[in-house]
Amino acid sequence: MAEKYVDLQTLKFLLYKVHGLDEVLATEYYSEHDQESIDLLLNSIKDFSDKELFPYIKEMDEQPAYFKDGGVVVHPQVETMLRKGGEMGLIAAPFDFDEGGMQLPMMAFTASNYIQEAANNHLPGYTSLTFGSAELISHFASQELKDLYIPKMLSGEWCGTMCLTEPQAGSSLSDITTSATPTENGTYKIKGQKIFISGGDHQYSDNFVHLLLGRIEGAPAGTKGISLFVVPQKRTKADGSLEFNDVNTAGDFQKLGQKGYCTTHLMFGEGDDCEGWLVGEPNKGLKYMFLMMNGARIAVGRGASAIAMAAYQASLEYANERPQGRPIDNTGNKNLDKEQSLIIEHPDVRRMLLLQKVVAEGSLSLILLASKYSDLSREAATEEERNRNLLLLEILTPLTKTYPAEMGMTSVSNGLQILGGYGFCTEFILQQYYRDIRIFSLYEGTTGIQSLDLLGRKVPMKGGQAVQLLAAEVMKTIEAANEYDELKPYAKKLGKKLELTQEVLGFLSGFAMKGDFDRYLSDATVFMEFFSKIVLAWLWLDMAREAKKALTTGEKTYTDEFYTNKVHAMQFYFKYELTQATGLAEVLMDGDTLTLAKDKDVFS
Amino acid sequence: MAEKYVDLQTLKFLLYKVHGLDEVLATEYYSEHDQESIDLLLNSIKDFSDKELFPYIKEMDEQPAYFKDGGVVVHPQVETMLRKGGEMGLIAAPFDFDEGGMQLPMMAFTASNYIQEAANNHLPGYTSLTFGSAELISHFASQELKDLYIPKMLSGEWCGTMCLTEPQAGSSLSDITTSATPTENGTYKIKGQKIFISGGDHQYSDNFVHLLLGRIEGAPAGTKGISLFVVPQKRTKADGSLEFNDVNTAGDFQKLGQKGYCTTHLMFGEGDDCEGWLVGEPNKGLKYMFLMMNGARIAVGRGASAIAMAAYQASLEYANERPQGRPIDNTGNKNLDKEQSLIIEHPDVRRMLLLQKVVAEGSLSLILLASKYSDLSREAATEEERNRNLLLLEILTPLTKTYPAEMGMTSVSNGLQILGGYGFCTEFILQQYYRDIRIFSLYEGTTGIQSLDLLGRKVPMKGGQAVQLLAAEVMKTIEAANEYDELKPYAKKLGKKLELTQEVLGFLSGFAMKGDFDRYLSDATVFMEFFSKIVLAWLWLDMAREAKKALTTGEKTYTDEFYTNKVHAMQFYFKYELTQATGLAEVLMDGDTLTLAKDKDVFS
Repeated sequence: MAEKYVDLQTLKFLLYKVHGLDEVLATEYYSEHDQESIDLLLNSIKDFSDKELFPYIKEMDEQPAYFKDGGVVVHPQVETMLRKGGEMGLIAAPFDFDEGGMQLPMMAFTASNYIQEAANNHLPGYTSLTFGSAELISHFASQELKDLYIPKMLSGEWCGTMCLTEPQAGSSLSDITTSATPTENGTYKIKGQKIFISGGDHQYSDNFVHLLLGRIEGAPAGTKGISLFVVPQKRTKADGSLEFNDVNTAGDFQKLGQKGYCTTHLMFGEGDDCEGWLVGEPNKGLKYMFLMMNGARIAVGRGASAIAMAAYQASLEYANERPQGRPIDNTGNKNLDKEQSLIIEHPDVRRMLLLQKVVAEGSLSLILLASKYSDLSREAATEEERNRNLLLLEILTPLTKTYPAEMGMTSVSNGLQILGGYGFCTEFILQQYYRDIRIFSLYEGTTGIQSLDLLGRKVPMKGGQAVQLLAAEVMKTIEAANEYDELKPYAKKLGKKLELTQEVLGFLSGFAMKGDFDRYLSDATVFMEFFSKIVLAWLWLDMAREAKKALTTGEKTYTDEFYTNKVHAMQFYFKYELTQATGLAEVLMDGDTLTLAKDKDVFS
Repeated sequence: MAEKYVDLQTLKFLLYKVHGLDEVLATEYYSEHDQESIDLLLNSIKDFSDKELFPYIKEMDEQPAYFKDGGVVVHPQVETMLRKGGEMGLIAAPFDFDEGGMQLPMMAFTASNYIQEAANNHLPGYTSLTFGSAELISHFASQELKDLYIPKMLSGEWCGTMCLTEPQAGSSLSDITTSATPTENGTYKIKGQKIFISGGDHQYSDNFVHLLLGRIEGAPAGTKGISLFVVPQKRTKADGSLEFNDVNTAGDFQKLGQKGYCTTHLMFGEGDDCEGWLVGEPNKGLKYMFLMMNGARIAVGRGASAIAMAAYQASLEYANERPQGRPIDNTGNKNLDKEQSLIIEHPDVRRMLLLQKVVAEGSLSLILLASKYSDLSREAATEEERNRNLLLLEILTPLTKTYPAEMGMTSVSNGLQILGGYGFCTEFILQQYYRDIRIFSLYEGTTGIQSLDLLGRKVPMKGGQAVQLLAAEVMKTIEAANEYDELKPYAKKLGKKLELTQEVLGFLSGFAMKGDFDRYLSDATVFMEFFSKIVLAWLWLDMAREAKKALTTGEKTYTDEFYTNKVHAMQFYFKYELTQATGLAEVLMDGDTLTLAKDKDVFS
């Protein structure tokens, strides 16, 4: 079993230096915190993760959650996660002081969850989903509902879930059919089934508070007729005691990975006795849900980033210990007089490790930056600043959800490959990470859906303002990098790719302007890949700039090697990853239209 | 469960038309066969696979092989595979008539195994590895060993294995330490342990015939001191009865995938009573092994191609049945008045399916072509022709092993993605294919090792002759494609990429000429990816050319749609895959040297 699962130095370097948490802490809302208090928090999370999370990662995979006698049985460590996590404030942290929270910035909350997920990605979902549903209640529900549910959720006694997907509708929420019939006492009778409900039932919560999307009788068709309800598994009677609310568990999906994080199939109102409470106004459910969606999508990217990091640490450890092969001499042959090499000395292994490193650390940089925009869009000095940060958050969100998931898979696969045949054996953890990370490109809107969101909504929004703001940020980094001779060639390369982006968008928007949206969007996923490569190059250049600054000014927190290695990793990213954008641009500007359905059957 | 796992029409189109099996059948050695007899054979293999292989694929995953009481327990269908397979001649087929074989061309044998592996990749390894080890004995061992082992192996009564890997040496065969001490009766005492031995022990074979690499006492260091031995699990006494030969099973590796195909850990001579028989001359073991290696590597590519095909069929079936979402109208919004779309109508799903199609069919084309070169290098009219085909086989072999494995993973992952959340559930087969195919880039020399073979050995061999021959073949296809107007732009694109290949090789060889082999080889894996993209473009253009020919001449075996869809798939390949070669060339010609060890620690 690997010993290290996270790189706290890099996490703190990104959090405090590269992305300047102090900017967020300077706002009034977060002013109770300073770097020292955040540092203490992160260190205590690390201790907790060392003790309560990391030791159970393999066991939770080997003893998956399962359905039995109408309920779901999960690993006992779920109880620790909920109770100790609740006590430590892991669920409540970002809430207001007066709700029992710590007013923790999203940046720090992201860092905190990241550490936990790197330690054991099967456990933190139980608390973070409870946080997310409590947040929905806190923002949009009545005071009565807040008082009833939030305290129990933040303490980890009651779990929260999000119930969106239905079997016949999949990702297409406009087609959901779960019905809500008004009753005389102002509540609704709920009837329908929901699938893929994470943490929807298990033995360690007295109650489950489901945030459910449904349709009030007579509501308009499509997404405009969707309302949000609180539907507890057990409802609270007048005397405060709980009674069954006709929410039954039909099963627990058995999965490729994340086997310790249960995925339930729930039946609401089979006995016509399921009561739901409307959240906010009717037919605005999807809007409420989507206001929380940026957070949920950053959380998905965070989980994938964390697994990529844990996998990197595990394969790095193996590569540093495993001898195999010999150095080659200047005739191109193996030199048998020399000692066996450690596999970390083989260039191809180093290439794979460096790929893991740039994906893992680059993804971490991305989720922290998105979290920063989230913090600053909430607490900005001016309305203009608020909007600016909101737009930057909006455009980065689909990438933040997608890049760590997609490139995380590639990166973990490289990690597995480093172990050779052992990588395929269950004795080693890499094969588990390989399975665990596979869900992240499906969660919360697949990569295809995120790509439609990016190209179809975020790029054109407000006349392309979000893209322009992002390009301006990239230009700032290019200018700052140009202060260091060593970085100049890379700043130049990034500038070229920014121009290429404009060219690609110019080509594609031609289709949109003609009203041919099918064609405009048909290569959205390729655009996502292209755009992500460039955004990550920006983040890497920014990291190298900060490293160069430390080396130049001498204001160093870590060793010289730490900083020079960041520059080296940036160079690696530019050579091996940014270059791929060229081929992707070629795809995007290729005139052939080959994936539209029309009436052609191209598969027979 | 999916219903279709292979596309026999495309298989036969490639076998008979695109790659012209008749050229092979025209040689004397194979003259007993004609297309009709091969057709009958393939159809009977398909029947056998429908009945005995495909129905067990999921079960074999869910009931993995396991170690118990010193032996390995495998799924009962292994017995059927061996006995019925033996009866049907599945093991013996390529052997000479006088050895009990059918003198089946490798092309047809590849096609036959491919069908079986597409049906169930956990089973055919038991027979095909037995074939491979019997082939080694047949080529290099004494008549006595041949008489003793070959008949029992070809009938499927005794299984054969290849024992190369040792725990301390991994892929580095120069470091193996299994020892062979000469005895008075001309045999050797064997002592050592071997790991990752596929099919090395189970309850359905009376004996296991291990082809083992070891070191005779006093042999030269490195690969020049390795000898090949036959080491049976049970040796044959003078009276013909069997006695234990001190080969013990220490365990069965538990794996991510291919769980029904056991992977054993064997101990030879723990009790100092393990007898081995030398094959051929001392110290030539690796040479013998490598003469069989082309076949073994094509077999790995074949298995990966087969899984990619089965996964494509499964996700295609799902996409054709699953409704989800709505068409978008000309305002870019979902049109709720229209019926739910089948997911196959969504452009991004079509893109993923087409990627699966071009990878699966392109890989099939590659393995059949490599098999053809293998046949023609064995039976050619002239020595020149023989050498020509051998060189083409040599350069294609590392690609044939690697491309289906690497792009197969990507392709299966796309298939899983098409199923959305269901793709992650064990109820659906995609997640199994995703796990099963992961081994193929590790088997028989990892992708990194194949890439060193390609760039380090095959490209420079005989003054670069193999590359030149391959380029000439590509030029032939370009010329032939230029006869069809629709294909001209693609022929031109391929020509440009061929020039780009020369440019890349020119750049890289600069390092080799300076004696800097470390740098020459450091991006070998990137070169493999680059080169494969171009070779596959060639194969696709060739397929489109044959399709165009059928459409133009009217000499059609299948529907018009079949042929136009091949042209469409070629266009897809050129747009979405060949384009990536541009970015890869950019990597290869980037001046930065970032993955050499020297004394830099870039990971701390």
